[in-house]
Amino acid sequence: MSEEGLYSQLKRFVVGKPIPSHLAEHERLSRLTGLAVLSSDALSSVAYATEEVLRVLVVAGAAAITFATPIAFVIAAILAIVVFSYRQTIHAYPSGGGAYLVSKDNLGEMPALIAAASLLIDYVLTVAVSIAAGVAAITSAFPDWHVSRVELALGFVLILMIGNLRGIRESGRIFAVPTYFFIFMMLLLIGLGVWRVLAGDVRPLASSLEPPAGSTEASLSLFLLLTAFSNGCTAMTGVEAVSNGVPAFKPPESKNAAATMLMMAVLSITMFLGITLLAQSYHVAPSDTETVVSQLARGVLGSRGALYYAVQAATMLILVLAANTAYADFPRLASILARDRYVPRQFMNQGDRLAFSNGIVGLSILAAILIVAFAGDTHALIPLYMIGVFVSFTLSQAGMVVRWRRQRGAGWRSNAAINALGAVVTGIVLLVVAITKAHEGAWVIMLLIPLNVLFFRMTRAHYDGVAKQLSMKGWRSAGPRRNTVLVPIGGIYRSVVEALEYAKTLSSDVRALYVNIDQGATGQVQKEWETWGGGLPLVVLESPYRSLMEPLLEYVGQVSSAHPNDYVTIVLPEFVPAKWWHHLFHNQRALLIKGALLFKPNTVVTSVPFHLRH
Amino acid sequence: MSEEGLYSQLKRFVVGKPIPSHLAEHERLSRLTGLAVLSSDALSSVAYATEEVLRVLVVAGAAAITFATPIAFVIAAILAIVVFSYRQTIHAYPSGGGAYLVSKDNLGEMPALIAAASLLIDYVLTVAVSIAAGVAAITSAFPDWHVSRVELALGFVLILMIGNLRGIRESGRIFAVPTYFFIFMMLLLIGLGVWRVLAGDVRPLASSLEPPAGSTEASLSLFLLLTAFSNGCTAMTGVEAVSNGVPAFKPPESKNAAATMLMMAVLSITMFLGITLLAQSYHVAPSDTETVVSQLARGVLGSRGALYYAVQAATMLILVLAANTAYADFPRLASILARDRYVPRQFMNQGDRLAFSNGIVGLSILAAILIVAFAGDTHALIPLYMIGVFVSFTLSQAGMVVRWRRQRGAGWRSNAAINALGAVVTGIVLLVVAITKAHEGAWVIMLLIPLNVLFFRMTRAHYDGVAKQLSMKGWRSAGPRRNTVLVPIGGIYRSVVEALEYAKTLSSDVRALYVNIDQGATGQVQKEWETWGGGLPLVVLESPYRSLMEPLLEYVGQVSSAHPNDYVTIVLPEFVPAKWWHHLFHNQRALLIKGALLFKPNTVVTSVPFHLRH
Repeated sequence: MSEEGLYSQLKRFVVGKPIPSHLAEHERLSRLTGLAVLSSDALSSVAYATEEVLRVLVVAGAAAITFATPIAFVIAAILAIVVFSYRQTIHAYPSGGGAYLVSKDNLGEMPALIAAASLLIDYVLTVAVSIAAGVAAITSAFPDWHVSRVELALGFVLILMIGNLRGIRESGRIFAVPTYFFIFMMLLLIGLGVWRVLAGDVRPLASSLEPPAGSTEASLSLFLLLTAFSNGCTAMTGVEAVSNGVPAFKPPESKNAAATMLMMAVLSITMFLGITLLAQSYHVAPSDTETVVSQLARGVLGSRGALYYAVQAATMLILVLAANTAYADFPRLASILARDRYVPRQFMNQGDRLAFSNGIVGLSILAAILIVAFAGDTHALIPLYMIGVFVSFTLSQAGMVVRWRRQRGAGWRSNAAINALGAVVTGIVLLVVAITKAHEGAWVIMLLIPLNVLFFRMTRAHYDGVAKQLSMKGWRSAGPRRNTVLVPIGGIYRSVVEALEYAKTLSSDVRALYVNIDQGATGQVQKEWETWGGGLPLVVLESPYRSLMEPLLEYVGQVSSAHPNDYVTIVLPEFVPAKWWHHLFHNQRALLIKGALLFKPNTVVTSVPFHLRH
Repeated sequence: MSEEGLYSQLKRFVVGKPIPSHLAEHERLSRLTGLAVLSSDALSSVAYATEEVLRVLVVAGAAAITFATPIAFVIAAILAIVVFSYRQTIHAYPSGGGAYLVSKDNLGEMPALIAAASLLIDYVLTVAVSIAAGVAAITSAFPDWHVSRVELALGFVLILMIGNLRGIRESGRIFAVPTYFFIFMMLLLIGLGVWRVLAGDVRPLASSLEPPAGSTEASLSLFLLLTAFSNGCTAMTGVEAVSNGVPAFKPPESKNAAATMLMMAVLSITMFLGITLLAQSYHVAPSDTETVVSQLARGVLGSRGALYYAVQAATMLILVLAANTAYADFPRLASILARDRYVPRQFMNQGDRLAFSNGIVGLSILAAILIVAFAGDTHALIPLYMIGVFVSFTLSQAGMVVRWRRQRGAGWRSNAAINALGAVVTGIVLLVVAITKAHEGAWVIMLLIPLNVLFFRMTRAHYDGVAKQLSMKGWRSAGPRRNTVLVPIGGIYRSVVEALEYAKTLSSDVRALYVNIDQGATGQVQKEWETWGGGLPLVVLESPYRSLMEPLLEYVGQVSSAHPNDYVTIVLPEFVPAKWWHHLFHNQRALLIKGALLFKPNTVVTSVPFHLRH
C-alpha cells in the first residue's frame, strides 16, 4: 500500500478519473445522438409489447387474436396523446421535467413523493424487464441457452453495473450504433414483411392458432380484452425519458428535445403497429421459448439466416441499452431526492461520482433480486412494470394542467387541455392496469409505493430533526475546558512510547494506565517506566476478574465524573500493518474501547497509527 | 442504546457473566464426572466403528464378514496398548499432556507444530463426524427425516456453538446423565444380545449377506482387509482426551485421571467387541439409511419399541456430547498456540471468554463446511478423520520415549518400552490408514497438515518481526514537537463548533478548513465564521474538480511537509446516532479521511462524537 492512501486508489479504481466542471458542456447531445441515448427504452419496448397482447388473446382462441389490431391502434393513439402532452413539458421545463419535479412544483409534496416512489420502482423494473427480454432474444436464437436465462440476465446486470461504475459519460457515442442498428433492422423486417404480404407470398408459421396446451379455452370477455390492452401499454414505457433529459441537448435545448421526441414517437408507433399486424398475418403463436419478434423474423426471412441473427442481435442490444438508461435515471433521481433530504445523503452527488455509485450498486442489487425471484421471465415481470410508469405519467400531466391554470399565459387553455387529455387518458390506463393486473403481482407495487413514500417522509423527518439539533441557536461556549489525556498501555513498546509522545503534545495532564493481571509483569512494567515513561505518571489499575476492559472503563468514568465539563481523551497506539491481511494478526482492542466509550459525553478516543514496516 | 456502551452489552449477551479466578477450583472433576466429561468422544465412536468395518468387508461377500472378528480383536489390543501408553503421559504431565505440549517438550518445534496441525483438524472432524453419526442415529429411527440430514446436522452445530458461546462451565453436570445413559443402554443391548445368542433365540435380520446392489463383488484382498482395519480404528479416536484434561480432576489428579482412563478403555473395548460380534450373529447388513447399531437394536429387541428408541436416543446424545468435547479442546489448543505466537492473538485467552469465542465460532464454521461438503455422510468423512488422530498419537508417544531416555529415572527402560510400543503400533496404523485411505480423501488432510504448519510458522515470523519493530532498543525521543490541528468543516453547525471547542484544547495552532465548491455558500460560511469561529483562522481551499477530499488531503500534505517532524491532527465531528440504523442516514466521510491518511507519518485523525438525541 503506497502512501497515496486507500481512498484515492479505491476511488480511481472503481469510478475512474474525476471530470473537471468545464468539460461537461462539450458532451451535449444532437438530435441524432439524443434519439440514440434517450429513446432506447421507449423503442425497445416494441420488442415485447405485441407478444404481451397476443399471449392474453390467444387464450380465447384463434378468433380473438384479430382483436390485436384494434388494441394496437388504441395504444398507438394514446401514445401519440402522451407524446404531445410531454412535448409541452419539454418547453415548460427546459432544465429537465421529470415527474417528481413537475409534481413537486405544481401538486405539492405528497404527489411528488408518490411520483418519485413510482419512478424509482419503474427504473428497477426497466432494468429487470429489459434484460429479461434481451435474454429472451438470445435464447430464441439459441434455444439451448434457455435453461441458463437467469445466469445470462445476472451477467448482463453485472456488466451494466461495472460499466456504469467506471463511467457513464462515454455512453453517448456507444448508444448511437446499436440504436440505429435496431431501428434499421426493425424497419427492414417490417418493410420486407409488408412487401411479402402485399405480394401474397406469406407462408404462415402455424396452420391454426391454438391456445397453449393444457389450458382450457377462455371465453372472450371484456376483462380479457382490457388485460390484453394493459399488456400492450408496455409499448409506452420510456417515452418520458426525453423530457427528463432536456438540458443534455445542444442549444436550443427544448426545440431539439421536442423534435427528438416526435421522431421517437413516429418510430415507436410504426414499429409497434407493424409488428402487431404482421404477427397476425404470419400466424405467430406466443411461445414460452421463442419470442414473437424471433418467430416473425423467421417467418418473414424464411429461415434462421444471417439477417435473422442480425434482428435478434439488434433486439438484444437495444434492450440492454434500455436497461442502461435506468442506470443514469435512478442515481440522478436519487440524488435529487437526497438533495431534498427524502433519501439518505449517501445518494447525493457532492462533486465526485461516489454518490452515483451507491445508486448504481443499489439499482443492480434490486434488479438482480427481481430477476432471480421471477426466474428471468419477462411475462411475469410485466404486470409489476406498468403501475409505476402510469402513476408517474398521470401525476406529471396533471401537474402540467395545474401549472397552466396558475400561470394563465397566452393560450393557456389549449395547453392545459392537451395536458388534461394526457392526464385523463393515462389515468384511465392506470386504472385499467390496476384492475386487470392486481392479482398478477401489481399489488406488490401498490404496496411498495406507499411504503417508499413512508420511507421518504421518515428520512426527511430524521434530517429535519438533525438540522434542529445542529442549529447554532442558543449555543454558547462553555468557556475554556481542560483535557485529561489517558494512555492505556499493555507494556513498554515503541508503539506505546510513540503514542505517549503524541499525547504529551495534547495536554499537560497525561497519565498512562496499566491493568494489573499478573503481579510479576506489573513490576517489570513499573521498573521500565522509570526509563521510558518520560516523567509521566503511571496509574496501575487492579482487575479482580482478569478483564482488561472493565478497569479501564471504570477509571475513565471516575475521571470524567470528577470534572464533568472537561474533556477526557483516550490515546491508543494502533498498528497499521504493511499488508491489509496482517490485520488478522492484531486485536481490534482500540475499536472495542472506542465502541464502549462512544456514548460517553466529552470523551474522545484517538488512535495514533504505528506503521509496521513488514 | 444506554451509556453502558456497546462492548459490555454485547459481551454479556454473547458470552455471559465473567467468572472470578478463585471460583475455578470448585469445579474439579471426580472419576465419575471425569469419565462423563472426557470419554464421550472415545465411547461414542463405537456407534460407528463396527459399521465402518462391515461396510468394507461386505463388498467381498458374506464369507468375508467373518473377518470382522479378528479385526476387532486386533483393534481392541491396539487400543489397550495406546491406553497403557497414555497412562504414562498422565503421570508424566500432571498439568495436561496434549500431543502438542509433549511433542514441543521432547521432539522440538516442527513435530510439535505437526501435532498441533493434526489436532486442530482432528477437532473439526470430531464435530463433523460425531454430529453426522448422531444424525444417522436419528434418521435410522425416523427414516422420513433422512432427506433432511444436512439441515439437522447444521442445526446441531448451531446449538453447540450457541451453547458453548454462552458458557461451557456448566457442562460437567450436563454430561453425566447422557454418558451413563449411553453406557447403560449399550451394555443392556449387548447383554440381552449375548443372552439370546446363548439361548439360541436369534432371529437373523437378513437370510444371507449380499454386497450392496449394483456393486460387483470384490475379491477378498489384503488391501481390503487393511481398509476394513483402518476403518475400525475409528474406535480409538478420542482416547487421548483424558490425558489432556488431567488438571481438571480432583486431587490426586494423575491417579484419578489414570483410573478414569482405564475405566474408559474397558468400556470402549467391551462395547466395540460386543457390537461387532453380535452384528455378525444377527446378520446385520450395512445400509445407507439405517445404522448398524439401529439394526442390531431392532434385531435384539425384536421391534421398534421403547427400548429401541432409548438406544437411538442415547447414541444420538453421546455423539452430540462427543462433538461438544471438541468445543472445549479446539479453543484451548488455539489459545496455547496463540500464547506461543503460532496463531493470531485473537485466539489467546486474556482474562475474558472472548478469545475462546473466536475458537468456538471458527470451529463451528469449519465443521459446518465439512458437513455441507460431505452431505452429512459419516462414511464419507471417516477417511479424513483418522490421519490427524494417528499423527498426534504417534508423535505424542514418540515424545514420551525421548523424555524417558533423557530423564533416565528409575525404571525408565520399561516405561520407554511401553511408550515405544505405543508409538510403533500407532505409527503402523497411521501408515496403514494413509495407504488405504489416501484415495478416499485422506490426501486432503496430508496436504492440510503441512499447510497449517506453514501458516503457524508465517504467523510466528510476523509476530517476531513486530516484536523487533516494537523493541525500545535504539529509540530516543525526538524532543518536544508541535501539533497543528486542522478541522475540516462543511458549514457552521453545532457539531462543527463543538469539534472546534475540543480542538482548541489540543494546540495553540488550530485552523478550520473549508472547501469552496459554490462561491455563494462559501461567502455565507465566511460571514458566519465571524460570529462562531472563536477567533480561529478559516482556510478556504479551492476545488477545481468539485471534490471535497482532494483539496483537504493536499493541504494536509503541505502542512506536514513544511514541518515533517511535527504532528498534524485532523479533528472531525462524528455523528453518533441515537439508533444504530440511523447510521444509514449519514456519510462515512470521517472514515474515508481516516483511510486516506492512515499511511501518512505523524498524522492523527480524531473524531469528536456529536450525540444525536433522536
